[in-house]
Amino acid sequence: MSEQTGFTLNETDLPKQWYNVLADSPVPPQPVLHPGTKEPVTPEFLSVLFPMELILQEISTDRFIDIPQEVSDIYKLYRPTPLIRARRLEKVLGTPAHIYYKNESVSPVGSHKPNTAIPQAFYNKAAGTKAITTETGAGQWGTALAMACNFFEMDLEVYMVKISYQQKPYRRIFMETYGAQVFASPTDRTDFGRSLLAKDPENGGSLGIAISEAVEVAAKSGGTKKYSLGSVLNHVLMHQTVIGEEALKQMDLAGEYPDVVIGCVGGGSNFAGIAYPFLRQNLKDGQRTRLLAVEPTATPSLTKGVYAFDYGDTAMMAPIVKMHTLGHTFMPAGIHAGGLRYHGMAPSLSALYDAGYIEAVAIPQVGTFEAAVMFTKAEGILPAPESAHAIRVAIDEALDAKVKGEKRVILFNLSGHGHFDMMSYQQYLSGMLVDYAYPSAAVAEAIQTLPQVEMAGLV
Amino acid sequence: MSEQTGFTLNETDLPKQWYNVLADSPVPPQPVLHPGTKEPVTPEFLSVLFPMELILQEISTDRFIDIPQEVSDIYKLYRPTPLIRARRLEKVLGTPAHIYYKNESVSPVGSHKPNTAIPQAFYNKAAGTKAITTETGAGQWGTALAMACNFFEMDLEVYMVKISYQQKPYRRIFMETYGAQVFASPTDRTDFGRSLLAKDPENGGSLGIAISEAVEVAAKSGGTKKYSLGSVLNHVLMHQTVIGEEALKQMDLAGEYPDVVIGCVGGGSNFAGIAYPFLRQNLKDGQRTRLLAVEPTATPSLTKGVYAFDYGDTAMMAPIVKMHTLGHTFMPAGIHAGGLRYHGMAPSLSALYDAGYIEAVAIPQVGTFEAAVMFTKAEGILPAPESAHAIRVAIDEALDAKVKGEKRVILFNLSGHGHFDMMSYQQYLSGMLVDYAYPSAAVAEAIQTLPQVEMAGLV
Repeated sequence: MSEQTGFTLNETDLPKQWYNVLADSPVPPQPVLHPGTKEPVTPEFLSVLFPMELILQEISTDRFIDIPQEVSDIYKLYRPTPLIRARRLEKVLGTPAHIYYKNESVSPVGSHKPNTAIPQAFYNKAAGTKAITTETGAGQWGTALAMACNFFEMDLEVYMVKISYQQKPYRRIFMETYGAQVFASPTDRTDFGRSLLAKDPENGGSLGIAISEAVEVAAKSGGTKKYSLGSVLNHVLMHQTVIGEEALKQMDLAGEYPDVVIGCVGGGSNFAGIAYPFLRQNLKDGQRTRLLAVEPTATPSLTKGVYAFDYGDTAMMAPIVKMHTLGHTFMPAGIHAGGLRYHGMAPSLSALYDAGYIEAVAIPQVGTFEAAVMFTKAEGILPAPESAHAIRVAIDEALDAKVKGEKRVILFNLSGHGHFDMMSYQQYLSGMLVDYAYPSAAVAEAIQTLPQVEMAGLV
Repeated sequence: MSEQTGFTLNETDLPKQWYNVLADSPVPPQPVLHPGTKEPVTPEFLSVLFPMELILQEISTDRFIDIPQEVSDIYKLYRPTPLIRARRLEKVLGTPAHIYYKNESVSPVGSHKPNTAIPQAFYNKAAGTKAITTETGAGQWGTALAMACNFFEMDLEVYMVKISYQQKPYRRIFMETYGAQVFASPTDRTDFGRSLLAKDPENGGSLGIAISEAVEVAAKSGGTKKYSLGSVLNHVLMHQTVIGEEALKQMDLAGEYPDVVIGCVGGGSNFAGIAYPFLRQNLKDGQRTRLLAVEPTATPSLTKGVYAFDYGDTAMMAPIVKMHTLGHTFMPAGIHAGGLRYHGMAPSLSALYDAGYIEAVAIPQVGTFEAAVMFTKAEGILPAPESAHAIRVAIDEALDAKVKGEKRVILFNLSGHGHFDMMSYQQYLSGMLVDYAYPSAAVAEAIQTLPQVEMAGLV
């Protein structure tokens, strides 16, 4: 046990550039469509929601994009993050595999989300944005953006899924401490929210609904408010590649190279963040690293969804993109991994999965908590329920390597800690946690509502 | 803003030894007395509660004590911790001062407490201990020891102050996830607990009561259970010196040396951890670093207590030590900084304060939350209410330097994050938080109950 455990980078090792997978992806991106006309959107349309610099990043095919000094200066508050070899977990499993994890839980808000919240706030500030709107589920994304907007002195309105708002007051208070305004969605602040409340005053909300409200507020603000999304979009995934760029250097320090890279996927950003730099090496150097995305059985957009054009939100106000989707009207079951409860998947990730460059697996939640507790006991860190999905599959890979007697190098992303998710651990420890089957019937129904996109060559 | 912010050490820089201040302290330690006979205790008496290796550390005057490899291997899961220059906070304050903080919140449990929990568990395991008992207030210490006992495969019973047990279920669940048993103190598991419940079934408990219960269980276990304390004792403070030893190296990387080192004090361990290595430099090299301990106005043991022999616990079962104390029957007000609600203070720290080697200040809680929110907004990290005491005084020092136009180098210990303390932030943000005056009358009453220690030359 006296061998090296932590592989530490200095501030000077902080990546100077983000990696844009669109430069290398063998599958060309599909156009983004206007939700009304279903025609490809113009930058002008997107500029209602986003500052131009982020729109340019969204469609850029430059391989690397410089990280502004102002963003690096804030990254330095918590980056580079540790890469740890999970020697104690390896020992518990009795596996010949080597397990490494990138620890994004050390950020001030306890997750990887600031990696994109900070640049999004920066580019908005630079464009003169006074206020931002966004949605949040369990609160990881809202907290990160609240911190970032505070740093750049902008107002923030967070539309928080009502059931989480009620059940997770700690995250709300955290956002409010940074100065953000937090509303339980559906609210009476939007046409869409009011229409839902008129039908059912007890509507508990969903991420799709909250997105619709945040988009509506920005779209109808007359240019005073912009909208910010914490996953799915190209520029968001790109900002997260600081994770993988650091991990490449740290694996080099460890003198190893991963056979498999694992991350959980909701919209896809933390997985893309760690995996895309390794995909680049696969494409460039002929490496053979498997890139393995893990989703919950309850929202299996990659493994059970369709690859089609669909709305990003429930109210059909957000752009239409081609992605793996369960249908924008799909209502996910109440799993504890709130950050993974999204009907769609990042377009770039969907395309790469469709073309076979990325693998995916869907797993039920009880096993993820079993893995989370095993990890907590072995490594000390209590993971977020989302991250527990990656841990479950990392453990399964290590056990598979044991059965086969293989030395396998496994790297996974520990996207966040679970200090705000203790009630879910309580449920697990008391035997109250349940699994959810594949929601086949609900998906079959929801995909009936996909938009009819008639453009030649698009579908 | 492009100058260096983080000063990073590698795993190879992890301290190899703890620093024992007793080797250098100009004030000799006073004997520890038996609570019954009031005569100096023997190692045999202490061995009912502690393994011999920790007793030897408790009375050792060796300057440095080697950190066992098994302990270092676990330290490596989160150490060395970051030293950060708070450039954004400096800017907000407009101060010429340079503010540095040592970030102990990155440990798996979010505080500095594992620094001693891990070696205490290790030495117990090595001595054949099967189970440990301890107390916890808000839960920081209990969580750290739960993690450590889990690592070394020992059972742990935690006596948690009942009011915290009820109000802070998250910490309880965290401890249970590591496999610990947690009881709301006073319990019906001890004679002392039963006696209190007979008088008042609604007794909400206190740290002094919980200590008494944990001590009673260990003392009456027939040698099967040992007791562990998270602060106050010499060996506990010594284990925490890894903080200051790392900070010395990191200040060197920063090319500066602190004019003042600041930490909050309850029992004194996190303050001693960062301050004692700098005290050594003061004594050895004639450095002039001020060492400034910060306590709450509600439990002002250094600034308003008496320096006298007193019991460590409420039930008068723990040893009698000479310390700054408010009286062992003192019941502190319900401030949110639960870790600072203790009637006494570490003997080594009390002696150094009495002799003028250390300064102390007591501050009310509303100002600590004001400082905490200012720090959260400037640096991103939301601190524990305990750590907020150090931040308040660091800010005051920086503002004083501004008034005087001085460049002052300030170092404080960020002993933990506040992710489990969000309700206290809610109270502050909603204007519901109150200050507590110095509890002069209660202290005057409690010090009437100090033990009469008649030994010549002792008092």
